[in-house]
Amino acid sequence: MGLFSKDIKTMDDLFVHQLQDVYYAEKQIHKSLPKMIDKATDAKLKQGLEAHRKETEGHIKRLEQVFKQHGAEVKAVNCPAIDGILKEADDVAGEVDDKQVLDAAIIAAAQAVEHYEITRYGTLAAWAKQLGREDCASLLKQNLDEEYAADDKLSKLAEDGINRKAA
Amino acid sequence: MGLFSKDIKTMDDLFVHQLQDVYYAEKQIHKSLPKMIDKATDAKLKQGLEAHRKETEGHIKRLEQVFKQHGAEVKAVNCPAIDGILKEADDVAGEVDDKQVLDAAIIAAAQAVEHYEITRYGTLAAWAKQLGREDCASLLKQNLDEEYAADDKLSKLAEDGINRKAA
Repeated sequence: MGLFSKDIKTMDDLFVHQLQDVYYAEKQIHKSLPKMIDKATDAKLKQGLEAHRKETEGHIKRLEQVFKQHGAEVKAVNCPAIDGILKEADDVAGEVDDKQVLDAAIIAAAQAVEHYEITRYGTLAAWAKQLGREDCASLLKQNLDEEYAADDKLSKLAEDGINRKAA
Repeated sequence: MGLFSKDIKTMDDLFVHQLQDVYYAEKQIHKSLPKMIDKATDAKLKQGLEAHRKETEGHIKRLEQVFKQHGAEVKAVNCPAIDGILKEADDVAGEVDDKQVLDAAIIAAAQAVEHYEITRYGTLAAWAKQLGREDCASLLKQNLDEEYAADDKLSKLAEDGINRKAA
């Protein structure tokens, strides 16, 4: 389902619904990463994606904690946004032979995933504060900071690739 | 179609394909904004989205210039990522009665769109430089900077909304 439904009447409903959306997204990302790791050829990129997969497990646990702290059921709702982003990322497992091109494409796909998470956690942390849930905001901010860091690492790997090519 | 196909063999192919992807995305965003503008209730939010719609027209023109400078056909390819993001944004036109909740949801949806563009323009500007196309990189960087600025404005509108509510 999309973000909205007749069930959303309050900021609290909106917050919980968005939590369910990003919970689904994190689970789908966790499922999709092995294929990207498998296709990546650069050792640092493989390691980076592997480390991010472990981090994703931590994000899922933090989200479950936020649900519980907020007294909401731990639940995922379909999110067409991440499905579309991962569909593009998944196609990385396609037919690109050149290793440099393939790795560049994988990095771009992974950064699109990071930016989706960054926007959602940014919004969720702000809404949690608005709802007076500093405890939830703090957990969401931890996920947000790790997504920013993951995106930075991917940018550095992309630059490394460009520099290697130029050398 | 997804990002990859058997036609992508070089960084140049990847660059042009990603250009076609973001060209499609900008056109879809331009089509989707009027519905969001119509649903928004806060005057500043309406004005901000309206201004961004005009900016989007400029982004489309800059992309067409990049295609031409690079000697590539001006062409759009389907992009399931933006389709998914806009499907969620589009659902904003749903059934949220409370004005504050509706505006908060519209801002969140618009920020998800901005972050998709930020990640794609960041990647494209880096690839253009790698390909020795400083002229294209400069145009893509202008679009990138405007997307960052649009995202910042949305964050400020979200904060204003929160402060108004608290007052």
